[in-house]
Amino acid sequence: MSNSQPNESCPRLDGATLLRQLRELGEIGADPEAGGRTRIALTDDEKTGRDLVVRWMRELELEVVVDRIGNVFGVLRSGRDDGTQAPFMMGSHIDTVTNAGGLDGCYGVLAGLAVARAYRDAGVIPARTIMVGAFTNEEGIRYQPDMMGSLVYAGGLSVDAALDTTGTDGTRLGDELARIGYGGDMEPGAIVPHDYVELHIKQGPILEAEGVQIGVVENLQGISWQQVTIQGNANHAGTTPTHLRHDAGLVAASIVTFLRELALSSGGTTLATVGCLSVQPNVINVIPRRATLTIDLRDPDEQRLKQAEQRLAGFLEEVAQREGVKMTAERLARFEPFVFDADLVAAIEALAKRFGVTNLRRTSGGGKHTQKFALPGRGGQWAGWPCGGWLG
Amino acid sequence: MSNSQPNESCPRLDGATLLRQLRELGEIGADPEAGGRTRIALTDDEKTGRDLVVRWMRELELEVVVDRIGNVFGVLRSGRDDGTQAPFMMGSHIDTVTNAGGLDGCYGVLAGLAVARAYRDAGVIPARTIMVGAFTNEEGIRYQPDMMGSLVYAGGLSVDAALDTTGTDGTRLGDELARIGYGGDMEPGAIVPHDYVELHIKQGPILEAEGVQIGVVENLQGISWQQVTIQGNANHAGTTPTHLRHDAGLVAASIVTFLRELALSSGGTTLATVGCLSVQPNVINVIPRRATLTIDLRDPDEQRLKQAEQRLAGFLEEVAQREGVKMTAERLARFEPFVFDADLVAAIEALAKRFGVTNLRRTSGGGKHTQKFALPGRGGQWAGWPCGGWLG
Repeated sequence: MSNSQPNESCPRLDGATLLRQLRELGEIGADPEAGGRTRIALTDDEKTGRDLVVRWMRELELEVVVDRIGNVFGVLRSGRDDGTQAPFMMGSHIDTVTNAGGLDGCYGVLAGLAVARAYRDAGVIPARTIMVGAFTNEEGIRYQPDMMGSLVYAGGLSVDAALDTTGTDGTRLGDELARIGYGGDMEPGAIVPHDYVELHIKQGPILEAEGVQIGVVENLQGISWQQVTIQGNANHAGTTPTHLRHDAGLVAASIVTFLRELALSSGGTTLATVGCLSVQPNVINVIPRRATLTIDLRDPDEQRLKQAEQRLAGFLEEVAQREGVKMTAERLARFEPFVFDADLVAAIEALAKRFGVTNLRRTSGGGKHTQKFALPGRGGQWAGWPCGGWLG
Repeated sequence: MSNSQPNESCPRLDGATLLRQLRELGEIGADPEAGGRTRIALTDDEKTGRDLVVRWMRELELEVVVDRIGNVFGVLRSGRDDGTQAPFMMGSHIDTVTNAGGLDGCYGVLAGLAVARAYRDAGVIPARTIMVGAFTNEEGIRYQPDMMGSLVYAGGLSVDAALDTTGTDGTRLGDELARIGYGGDMEPGAIVPHDYVELHIKQGPILEAEGVQIGVVENLQGISWQQVTIQGNANHAGTTPTHLRHDAGLVAASIVTFLRELALSSGGTTLATVGCLSVQPNVINVIPRRATLTIDLRDPDEQRLKQAEQRLAGFLEEVAQREGVKMTAERLARFEPFVFDADLVAAIEALAKRFGVTNLRRTSGGGKHTQKFALPGRGGQWAGWPCGGWLG
């Protein structure tokens, strides 16, 4: 929320309603057996979730706007808005991964509604229009890429290309969007917000470990994703001497342990993860012919991220030569680190202090749709966006 | 073949027929697209292969005997055989893996037929009954364990348990055996051979690298198979500091690189292979929660194999503690090293020398069904078996 509003009037957040709505939304798609809930984008369950959120928007007498990619916005118009005022935007998403927690995404959307409700309850018209968004397909489970609704909204992907995406189940995104009745008229990105703030549940252990209530995110790490494929020779485990092996699995393992050393030697700023790893033919007595792994490198500093990438590239070359294997490295994604608007970060920090909430400036490790809004080089119109957020 | 026979008469091997039969048998189940041939045990294609081998046995006027597990034997009765003489046995198997080479198994069976043919062509009755065997389901692709026909024949698995095996396709082995018409009457193991020799294509690079024509196998390595399961914590790749990670994939990788060091430090006698390796959830930005890998350790010396197992166990404990993961190690198989009959090995070596064939005494790295016959402690009746073989 903007720095000046708490002085103008006394809208107060209704925490009980926020929690009740989180629970109610969390029951849609609930899986009592395996735990959590599953509300994959543009399924029947996700439509039920959207319908509920829209009902709550209407109960607050917000203007409901849906864009062509299905992003849903509830708008609380300010008295001074002549149609040209850039709004204050909050939001996130309500689609989930499989057996998801109840807070991810939903917390950001329903916290936005809680802010609008605070104004309604106090009978106060805000000085700036408030817009609460629920973006389409942020999880990317059924349709890739993830963070799609915000990406399209920010202009990073054309709406037509997004609508033409084929899902893991063979469906076309645009058809499913129309089927659940959420293909709107507004052109994505038509309304450019003045500020964008997202409340999000933390996904890392640091705040908990340090006993701090909220993290004030001041920057996003840079992210470098690669997929490495190693081609060695499949040979018999019992008849191939060690020095004649070209073991793709061993090379993959060497990369994993190298990356741990790389992360440790960075003093904690570089994170390195191998999340996907598989070998072929995957038979107990056959030396792996082929191995595939993904590498996720992150650092808040672009220079250090580049150095990590370079050290990795050097190691890949060295190990491929030493073990006599062929190797290809494919870049899957690359985002430079991003620093959020310092004034907005400072305002959030000051407000937290005023309300007695322990807090910590943090680098966000995750990719959030704030990031899509904040990505440099996505066209001049977005360059000045002062994006901030409360992210764990 | 026994040492004395070449002096008694002049049966000569017909190499052209052996090669023609290898080609003809190799066409059954051939896959021109992917290469090789696929003749999985007890399928229609394997039945066609069996029928062809039996036809060739009958053409040589061999007595065809089939046992209850479907092992097929062609018997060339010696003139001195009053029904109590222990025969000289050769053989292997004709079932294959997927897209297999044409020699594995078939070479051993058809070489046995070539020996019988040599006697028939020369019109000579051998001094000792010759028995050529094709054992059932040695590859273990469809029904586990592998080397099953010889295992049952040697008494290591009851025939009824083997017949009750359920295949990867849900079929019962005994039903499939009956369906293809190869469930015989003889009790497996009823005829105990005097010697057993198996000709086999080498599966390792050593002979080729040294320009040697045949390997005379004097012992089998000991084999130790384990499956290790590592339970860590799945956490977000971008938000979990390195020192708070419990990365099951990293632990698996550390085991793989440790095993390479272990093999190298053995001076070449210990072989170590991780053939199967998988992680869960196998997602690019999630630290693996779980990893599973198989470990194949081999050494011709039992003491050294035990030491390798102990060093591995120590490392598993150390890495589990260091990384804060849970770990279970399950033993899948354990065979002690075995030394073949020295006289038979010397005879093979002497014959190779006499025929001008370059040769090398070798440890067999593979498990062959000779091994099943040779396993110590499988009952007194087998203890004296002088098993040898020509294995690569």
